[in-house]
Amino acid sequence: MKAFVIQGGFGMENLQLQERDTPRPGRGEVRLQMKAVSLNYRDYLMVTGAYNPKQPLPLVPCSDGVGIVDEVGPDVDRLQPGMRVATLFAPLWRGGRPDRQGIRTTLGGPLDGTLTEHMVVPEGAVVPVPEHLSHVEAATLTCAGLTAWSALVTQGGVTAGETVLVQGTGGVSLFALQFANLLGARVIVTSSKDDKLEKAKDLGAWQGINYIDDPHWGRTAKKLTGGVGVDHVVEVGGAGTLAQSCTAVRIGGCISLIGILAGPQADIALTPILMQNIRVQGIFVGHREGFEAMNRAVDQHRLQPVVDRVFPFEETREAFYYLSAARHMGKICIEF
Amino acid sequence: MKAFVIQGGFGMENLQLQERDTPRPGRGEVRLQMKAVSLNYRDYLMVTGAYNPKQPLPLVPCSDGVGIVDEVGPDVDRLQPGMRVATLFAPLWRGGRPDRQGIRTTLGGPLDGTLTEHMVVPEGAVVPVPEHLSHVEAATLTCAGLTAWSALVTQGGVTAGETVLVQGTGGVSLFALQFANLLGARVIVTSSKDDKLEKAKDLGAWQGINYIDDPHWGRTAKKLTGGVGVDHVVEVGGAGTLAQSCTAVRIGGCISLIGILAGPQADIALTPILMQNIRVQGIFVGHREGFEAMNRAVDQHRLQPVVDRVFPFEETREAFYYLSAARHMGKICIEF
Amino acid sequence: MKAFVIQGGFGMENLQLQERDTPRPGRGEVRLQMKAVSLNYRDYLMVTGAYNPKQPLPLVPCSDGVGIVDEVGPDVDRLQPGMRVATLFAPLWRGGRPDRQGIRTTLGGPLDGTLTEHMVVPEGAVVPVPEHLSHVEAATLTCAGLTAWSALVTQGGVTAGETVLVQGTGGVSLFALQFANLLGARVIVTSSKDDKLEKAKDLGAWQGINYIDDPHWGRTAKKLTGGVGVDHVVEVGGAGTLAQSCTAVRIGGCISLIGILAGPQADIALTPILMQNIRVQGIFVGHREGFEAMNRAVDQHRLQPVVDRVFPFEETREAFYYLSAARHMGKICIEF
Amino acid sequence: MKAFVIQGGFGMENLQLQERDTPRPGRGEVRLQMKAVSLNYRDYLMVTGAYNPKQPLPLVPCSDGVGIVDEVGPDVDRLQPGMRVATLFAPLWRGGRPDRQGIRTTLGGPLDGTLTEHMVVPEGAVVPVPEHLSHVEAATLTCAGLTAWSALVTQGGVTAGETVLVQGTGGVSLFALQFANLLGARVIVTSSKDDKLEKAKDLGAWQGINYIDDPHWGRTAKKLTGGVGVDHVVEVGGAGTLAQSCTAVRIGGCISLIGILAGPQADIALTPILMQNIRVQGIFVGHREGFEAMNRAVDQHRLQPVVDRVFPFEETREAFYYLSAARHMGKICIEF
Repeated sequence: MKAFVIQGGFGMENLQLQERDTPRPGRGEVRLQMKAVSLNYRDYLMVTGAYNPKQPLPLVPCSDGVGIVDEVGPDVDRLQPGMRVATLFAPLWRGGRPDRQGIRTTLGGPLDGTLTEHMVVPEGAVVPVPEHLSHVEAATLTCAGLTAWSALVTQGGVTAGETVLVQGTGGVSLFALQFANLLGARVIVTSSKDDKLEKAKDLGAWQGINYIDDPHWGRTAKKLTGGVGVDHVVEVGGAGTLAQSCTAVRIGGCISLIGILAGPQADIALTPILMQNIRVQGIFVGHREGFEAMNRAVDQHRLQPVVDRVFPFEETREAFYYLSAARHMGKICIEF
Repeated sequence: MKAFVIQGGFGMENLQLQERDTPRPGRGEVRLQMKAVSLNYRDYLMVTGAYNPKQPLPLVPCSDGVGIVDEVGPDVDRLQPGMRVATLFAPLWRGGRPDRQGIRTTLGGPLDGTLTEHMVVPEGAVVPVPEHLSHVEAATLTCAGLTAWSALVTQGGVTAGETVLVQGTGGVSLFALQFANLLGARVIVTSSKDDKLEKAKDLGAWQGINYIDDPHWGRTAKKLTGGVGVDHVVEVGGAGTLAQSCTAVRIGGCISLIGILAGPQADIALTPILMQNIRVQGIFVGHREGFEAMNRAVDQHRLQPVVDRVFPFEETREAFYYLSAARHMGKICIEF
Repeated sequence: MKAFVIQGGFGMENLQLQERDTPRPGRGEVRLQMKAVSLNYRDYLMVTGAYNPKQPLPLVPCSDGVGIVDEVGPDVDRLQPGMRVATLFAPLWRGGRPDRQGIRTTLGGPLDGTLTEHMVVPEGAVVPVPEHLSHVEAATLTCAGLTAWSALVTQGGVTAGETVLVQGTGGVSLFALQFANLLGARVIVTSSKDDKLEKAKDLGAWQGINYIDDPHWGRTAKKLTGGVGVDHVVEVGGAGTLAQSCTAVRIGGCISLIGILAGPQADIALTPILMQNIRVQGIFVGHREGFEAMNRAVDQHRLQPVVDRVFPFEETREAFYYLSAARHMGKICIEF
Repeated sequence: MKAFVIQGGFGMENLQLQERDTPRPGRGEVRLQMKAVSLNYRDYLMVTGAYNPKQPLPLVPCSDGVGIVDEVGPDVDRLQPGMRVATLFAPLWRGGRPDRQGIRTTLGGPLDGTLTEHMVVPEGAVVPVPEHLSHVEAATLTCAGLTAWSALVTQGGVTAGETVLVQGTGGVSLFALQFANLLGARVIVTSSKDDKLEKAKDLGAWQGINYIDDPHWGRTAKKLTGGVGVDHVVEVGGAGTLAQSCTAVRIGGCISLIGILAGPQADIALTPILMQNIRVQGIFVGHREGFEAMNRAVDQHRLQPVVDRVFPFEETREAFYYLSAARHMGKICIEF
């Protein structure tokens, strides 16, 4: 079988397609024939070495994937050959309170990931996916979908009648837009491109703000809610945007910190967090129980994840270059 | 009657004792004969103009006080002359979700405060206090007590078997130490003085860390919990200490931001908040329902607030100077 | 002005239209010119004396109403003449934890209610209503709307992807159906009439079960969810239906007890509650904060409450007879 | 090795000590050398056939036990020979939401239980226990300890300043008394024996009520709280006592249904649950995450479970007879 492997050093030039032995499942394990993978920015940082320079190599990158069970080991209870499943980012985190081991044992580093024709995983490390989704669509749930679900539902408790501000139109952001609508909330989206704002409205956004034209978008968002402020912000930018998020959010509101694209570190004013009783909640993907709850919602509403572009497995490197250019809207996927 | 008033400009030199007409309660109001006041650092910042330079003057400062009802207006249902009550910092915030008006209508600015021999308040703006407390002790509940309660109970859900790290030995911190013990949690206290750490242990602290001797106190706190990290940090310092707090707290733990003594703004690393699923919760004192719940706990356990020093009303300015020197441990109070 | 008053004894024959002096608002109060009232089964029981035989008479019945502020007393901050507001069932219950006084001080008994051309209420005892609603529609929110909201949102936490079973097609049940859909849940409705089930599907129900044809509807509901059970039951029947509800609900699910139409008392098996970790949550309408949250959702989604029939004020007695016949679907209202 | 087995039919006469092959651990499994077992009333009902007449035989009864790991199979990560662990009642229920399989796969029926000199279990089916406990004390945690913890903490959120009413002085009840004290709550205990009430006070109960002398104990409990009602009832009796519990509990309070000793079924009045906004929460032991949290509290506070009497393994049948006589206070245990 073939797999993409980072070997000999970090960097796109070291991401190479290799021939490997096809693995066999042991007790309690299943083997998947991979059908699709979706890329996250984390995967790009992993390849380039920016995510974790100490990650031992070789490594098969990527955490998100969908496959068909094609062989089961002994003592596998719930899965059978032919079932379609998605991988879990953090397979040991079943639910409830995370522990260090559970949150650090993740696919695509330190564990080998999904960019491979076959992979063997413990039975509990995958979940069945809704039938109406294509392989590629289902592959977007693992990180982008679950992060948005954890932010809004598991840890956010967003409910009908609320307003959610979603930064940008990347994978997590578009899931957040769609989930917020399912939950009965209305959504304000920010973007640097008017055409992306239009597409966001087609997906159900209530309002769009171009943050290039309107650098004080936090104030604008607040005005849109009649001066009260939004209930929830899905914070993707991090240091570069947190101040505007604090302006946008209502007294006692919540900011889910799910990304730090605009910088990991900066001068941050803490006074608004204190004086406005704001909660800043770090979101690190999520747990299996959340994935299953999300699947029930995706299934019930026949929700369609937004896929920007699909590359064949052999062109995975092109997919990474496309990702790094950051012009996409929705998920970038790989199909086998 | 006499009252301390900031008049003619900010600054300690403009905090003056004045003769004023004794007010009369209107419909739904009661008049208090003040017995004790406790000082918060906010009050000092208010006097000096640092808290809100736009605050209109004259202003009677201070939010915390205990008085005896000595006259009731028409249509007062729950209070009678002779009852002893404490003031509420934010009298309009009854419970649940705060709104802007509720969180900005506060005593000692913008509303006149408690440094006065008599004050008139709506019936709902005060709460009865536990009998076993002296006037001075009861006066410490309004801000310091309630902030600690909101952090640990209302918004923190601290429970038995957890570990709470409390920064310093100021008023909120010592209440947090005492409340955490009531809740069945163990407490690590940080301080720059070994003698304060000893006193904190006398009050029930499990461990003390001198942060001058041990600038990497976050790592030390984590080690004390067997490498897991503490469940909850009561963050008093703000920008200067948040990084250590992020090191100290466990995966999925909570940091209650209740003060910014070490700076309102600084280079803050967001990555740990994201990657460790940390919650940072701003705490702005609290609501009436929380005050009543706290009183039940204080009453039931005959809890004794820690009072550092009591000044007579006439020496209020000396009390403020003493506060600004920041050598105290526990609350600084005024007695009428 | 005119008002309906129960006088001289309970019973429909003692519900009479009387001439009364038009009241004037005192300090902190407003006067409403009533525009619409909606009836609840509680109101009928109050008139007949079944609800509370010790209720002192005379009494103006009914708790739900919408009016226009036509006079404001001194010190009224938030309301002005011309504003349209709805009454609160329990005006003292602002939010959070209820107390005895808050939950027992209710309109239409012991307090005079809404079946009157004018009424005077404290400013805090009413809330503005969404603009898109007719007077009659807005009048349905006070009890039926808020009870459903409290069951599903405030105390239920229903979220996207869940399944809610709603008993019957009365006022609370139809609101529960509509709110559950807003929240992203799917709804199973039970009824004794196929035509009502059809109408419920028009309103968004996912499935309907005729409980006459299928007395083991609990088992059927469970099958519809793939054998897992529904997440939430809105229990209207009480003693007569609880056993089926326990069969229908999933392990760890919730039954909101909002009515006892099928009997207040009966042989109830507790074993399923224990062994299936079920929560049975009594719902007694709800608090002001919940009403405001509900209004945001109703407003945002332009939700249309279901009104079965509107009677003119003079024909209020006919409206009560119609209510007691129990053939309606949705709310029965009175228009002035 | 020897084990007690129900064989050939239900009934105490069919509980026999047998010689069995000592099992060997497979992959991911460990073998325990059992040191102690604690009995629950469920175990007695299982032996007599009252719990589940369809339970296939033979069956090794009992769910609670402590053993030393004496052999580990391949791929065991967290356990090593020599470690002391307790069994989990429902080993598949890791945390969060229970599912049917998780809540029905329990030790001592349908799975073989702990009344055996050696048993083999999956690594995840046991948890380490606090060091300060004797084997016998540690064996009481599995069901009685965890049920009380789930009722008060996981699902109850009991906190400082609250009042908890605990029915009786059985195993769960005494744990509830001790945990409530850890959490800062005060406890009212009911019993039919004054000497047991005295012992309960020695253990930290605030008040005791003899329910034989005072059949209206619900009213008495309410009076003790100044007419407000208790915050939480640990309901052990079920049908026979629920009415008094509804009288005792405050508006909006919680009744944890953990047992049905006074009857599984009876005429129950639902009106109080509805009108007082009461929550009745079924508690079916609990999950692994709760067990670990409980252990942290037990460890931190060096809590000593109350053991009534210890029987040697050979006298297990005597222990069951003693249990069925219901005169004990605290747990009845078996020592190997």
